[in-house]
Amino acid sequence: MTSSTTNNGPTVMPDVQGKVDVRNIAIDRVGVKNVTYPIRLVRPEFAGGGEQSTVATIDMFVGLPANQKGTHMSRFMEVLNSYDQAFRPSDIPAITAKIRERLDAPAATFNASFTYFVKKFAPVTKQPSLMDYRGSFECTVTEAGTDFLMGVQAPATSLCPCSKEISAYGAHNQRCLIEAKVKFEGEMWLEDLVTALERSASMELFAVLKRPDEKYVTERAYENPKFVEDIVRDLAVGLDADKRIHWYTISSTNYESIHSHDAFATLTRSVGSNK
Amino acid sequence: MTSSTTNNGPTVMPDVQGKVDVRNIAIDRVGVKNVTYPIRLVRPEFAGGGEQSTVATIDMFVGLPANQKGTHMSRFMEVLNSYDQAFRPSDIPAITAKIRERLDAPAATFNASFTYFVKKFAPVTKQPSLMDYRGSFECTVTEAGTDFLMGVQAPATSLCPCSKEISAYGAHNQRCLIEAKVKFEGEMWLEDLVTALERSASMELFAVLKRPDEKYVTERAYENPKFVEDIVRDLAVGLDADKRIHWYTISSTNYESIHSHDAFATLTRSVGSNK
Amino acid sequence: MTSSTTNNGPTVMPDVQGKVDVRNIAIDRVGVKNVTYPIRLVRPEFAGGGEQSTVATIDMFVGLPANQKGTHMSRFMEVLNSYDQAFRPSDIPAITAKIRERLDAPAATFNASFTYFVKKFAPVTKQPSLMDYRGSFECTVTEAGTDFLMGVQAPATSLCPCSKEISAYGAHNQRCLIEAKVKFEGEMWLEDLVTALERSASMELFAVLKRPDEKYVTERAYENPKFVEDIVRDLAVGLDADKRIHWYTISSTNYESIHSHDAFATLTRSVGSNK
Amino acid sequence: MTSSTTNNGPTVMPDVQGKVDVRNIAIDRVGVKNVTYPIRLVRPEFAGGGEQSTVATIDMFVGLPANQKGTHMSRFMEVLNSYDQAFRPSDIPAITAKIRERLDAPAATFNASFTYFVKKFAPVTKQPSLMDYRGSFECTVTEAGTDFLMGVQAPATSLCPCSKEISAYGAHNQRCLIEAKVKFEGEMWLEDLVTALERSASMELFAVLKRPDEKYVTERAYENPKFVEDIVRDLAVGLDADKRIHWYTISSTNYESIHSHDAFATLTRSVGSNK
Repeated sequence: MTSSTTNNGPTVMPDVQGKVDVRNIAIDRVGVKNVTYPIRLVRPEFAGGGEQSTVATIDMFVGLPANQKGTHMSRFMEVLNSYDQAFRPSDIPAITAKIRERLDAPAATFNASFTYFVKKFAPVTKQPSLMDYRGSFECTVTEAGTDFLMGVQAPATSLCPCSKEISAYGAHNQRCLIEAKVKFEGEMWLEDLVTALERSASMELFAVLKRPDEKYVTERAYENPKFVEDIVRDLAVGLDADKRIHWYTISSTNYESIHSHDAFATLTRSVGSNK
Repeated sequence: MTSSTTNNGPTVMPDVQGKVDVRNIAIDRVGVKNVTYPIRLVRPEFAGGGEQSTVATIDMFVGLPANQKGTHMSRFMEVLNSYDQAFRPSDIPAITAKIRERLDAPAATFNASFTYFVKKFAPVTKQPSLMDYRGSFECTVTEAGTDFLMGVQAPATSLCPCSKEISAYGAHNQRCLIEAKVKFEGEMWLEDLVTALERSASMELFAVLKRPDEKYVTERAYENPKFVEDIVRDLAVGLDADKRIHWYTISSTNYESIHSHDAFATLTRSVGSNK
Repeated sequence: MTSSTTNNGPTVMPDVQGKVDVRNIAIDRVGVKNVTYPIRLVRPEFAGGGEQSTVATIDMFVGLPANQKGTHMSRFMEVLNSYDQAFRPSDIPAITAKIRERLDAPAATFNASFTYFVKKFAPVTKQPSLMDYRGSFECTVTEAGTDFLMGVQAPATSLCPCSKEISAYGAHNQRCLIEAKVKFEGEMWLEDLVTALERSASMELFAVLKRPDEKYVTERAYENPKFVEDIVRDLAVGLDADKRIHWYTISSTNYESIHSHDAFATLTRSVGSNK
Repeated sequence: MTSSTTNNGPTVMPDVQGKVDVRNIAIDRVGVKNVTYPIRLVRPEFAGGGEQSTVATIDMFVGLPANQKGTHMSRFMEVLNSYDQAFRPSDIPAITAKIRERLDAPAATFNASFTYFVKKFAPVTKQPSLMDYRGSFECTVTEAGTDFLMGVQAPATSLCPCSKEISAYGAHNQRCLIEAKVKFEGEMWLEDLVTALERSASMELFAVLKRPDEKYVTERAYENPKFVEDIVRDLAVGLDADKRIHWYTISSTNYESIHSHDAFATLTRSVGSNK
């Protein structure tokens, strides 16, 4: 340690990360994880318009060439904090490109997941309430261009067709968590994905249900039984029919009410060639 | 099941929860847990003023007398959802009282925890960044009145005095999570608690640190070693000196860098009698 | 830092924790958290006898008098590691007393929670399978004596009485998690608590269910609807009837299949005076 | 629903899952998740021999052809539960093959993760203690053969080279979590991976450290600073030198003591072509 390092001035401090590395090992992704930051989401006109402010958990990475000792972690956070009050989803490609530029990297990735609220109305009484979902965006910028994913996790009801079929009355049902991440062209909203996810379940959820609503959702789920396989297949059919979408990965996790373990199904499809 | 139940109208549906219970067992707390809802927090003038919107995780409970079969879960959610865009901390006593009234209960409790951002400036370069904390409010309303707690969890740096003392160089340090929940009189801000928590650590955290800042926080933590016991005691000394506070429960969890387990200390004190 | 500290010998190292503290603040609990250690559990004869080895998460604390600067964290771990391959529940009072003695403390606490397996047989086909529960022990030793709690968390099925009553067919049901912690006299097994918990649900769970079993559990849950309030009350009735138990705290969390939030009920009772 | 379904006999029940599906969508993976089951691990002779029993979290999946409506979830659990007291890692390929056969599937996957204990001796005082790691196995069986991965997550100490270089004294350090999953030929033990992971850190962890040990690990970490990039690169160098390994994916997550977010690096390499 040299005496110069007792000086607080930034100009004389050694740049340890900037040194040359001789191990000849490139790193796929290096950066910061579990950063918490405000995000401001635009609501589409069909959902009432305006904005909602919520909280994102963010990962930011770059690829690190074999000859560079380290990345500069503080620059990720500087780029993010240059969005003073909150960033918007529409800022993400620019943020990712800026990270790639500031870190002088071949590739940069920016992932954010966040709670997202949609105002829904109970099916019979029309009581309004806010339903919460998890949304996500994943953006990667390389020399070849920008890759962008949008995702939603929606809890829903699944009711077992086998249990219904073999039982004299009743059918086991449970909360499930359905997820889709999509690549798309044109304009697509988180609300569009929420709708697609909820249509694939036995029944969608609401935060407030009065008795006539509870009767409705109970009977509707019973009329609409779905295996975990049916949920992902019906979701796939729905996404296949959406001309904007050219790739997706989807899954459902069913928190079985008759077991202490979960049922799960997943599939990933590139559908660009079909359209 | 009677044929009237095939009618969707609410007036003819039986109120199962409203029946009389004969088991003669009162329930301390019954209600809803892990509700997600927007919260809108006022920033004090000294922190720049304005508001920030974030996301709360909420529990709402009532006491249930021995002779009542069930509470009406949907009413908790109706009261909460009557705050359309978001509720504010100042609404909490009224929400809690309203829950007690709507559920006709001897006691009602409303707990909310949420991410909270404070704009901070790096110690040397003064680079601005947002630092995230977890805040909480707990409110209970009974015939006797209203009880209100405010809490903050702040991550910080702890540096081990023993390791420093016995080692020729270096000292193990780690992230710790310090928490305080307080009962107070008069006006008190989340920022006031954040300041008290951070003063009790070896060093506070920042989201952005440039090299001169990193040098500063490294040296400052080394000059200011603290056992987990020192953190809670120094925090207790700080809270004891605050005339507004008459009760607190505090803890620190240190994610030891030399072990796979954590160090922990906690204490609870009523200080009303001292003031 | 003195030059003596460059010597690795333990005899000359300063005992920083042993110093006198002048802040005059006693600490309720200080120690280690989230320690992972093997535990060896005896199975009762009625469950097949023998032992099962599993993994415990352990917290160990002592009270720290106001005049002592710090506790000696390594001694907690030394006491635990003196049980070479694994400790047994029957060792816990001695471990706790040893911690109190080694740390020269007014009170010591030892908490352990662990996965516990019970071999069960499907209700119709009698297919065997292992069902997993979380068990726990909490022990506190003071001058006044030893306090010992045993706890179990059991997942189960809950089926909503209101949904069943108002719907033409079906009823929403879901996984719930029922918990009891008890103080008792005489001999009591984790299996005894598991039985009490499962009897209070709409239906118990099994790891393997063939179709005739699935029909059985579906119909049985439908015939046996329970609000979260009914679960804790029926559990209370069951525990009240057990002459060994003189205190308990119980709860149920129902992961509602029609909501994204949970229903919850809890009550704590001292029943020693009734027996 | 036919009247035959009120009969409990399995022979007359309809096989809903066995029906033909017309949506023409194959499912990549369907099965059960978060199953808890005992696992019995053989300790190598160099680590004292014998066995340890611990608890695994298990996922089991099959690929589902487009024309099949559903998989038979209970069969996964039957195969697993045919290992009465516990399964062993050496059973995993046979379990996976059996699942593929019982479910008549093109591919089957079996993943298990579990706590694993290694007896270690403090570096100076040689005090023995058990250190806990997370191990994992992932096995996939297709027509083409069997693919097998072994993984370990090891917590360790990382000390920042930049902080050390620029500071007059001290250096920020923290707990990190290093992970490797490898494909290999021949015999390889979890202990071998643990050793490789711990060598790549600034310092390994121990459950018990007396003062001379704490001095040792503090000084050793200070003498051995590592960025998160250095940890994964040094680990890569170590794995590249192991002739048994032909593929790996590795990462390190550093729980920064000066930030509330984490530093992270990861890389994946196929090294079969080099050997």
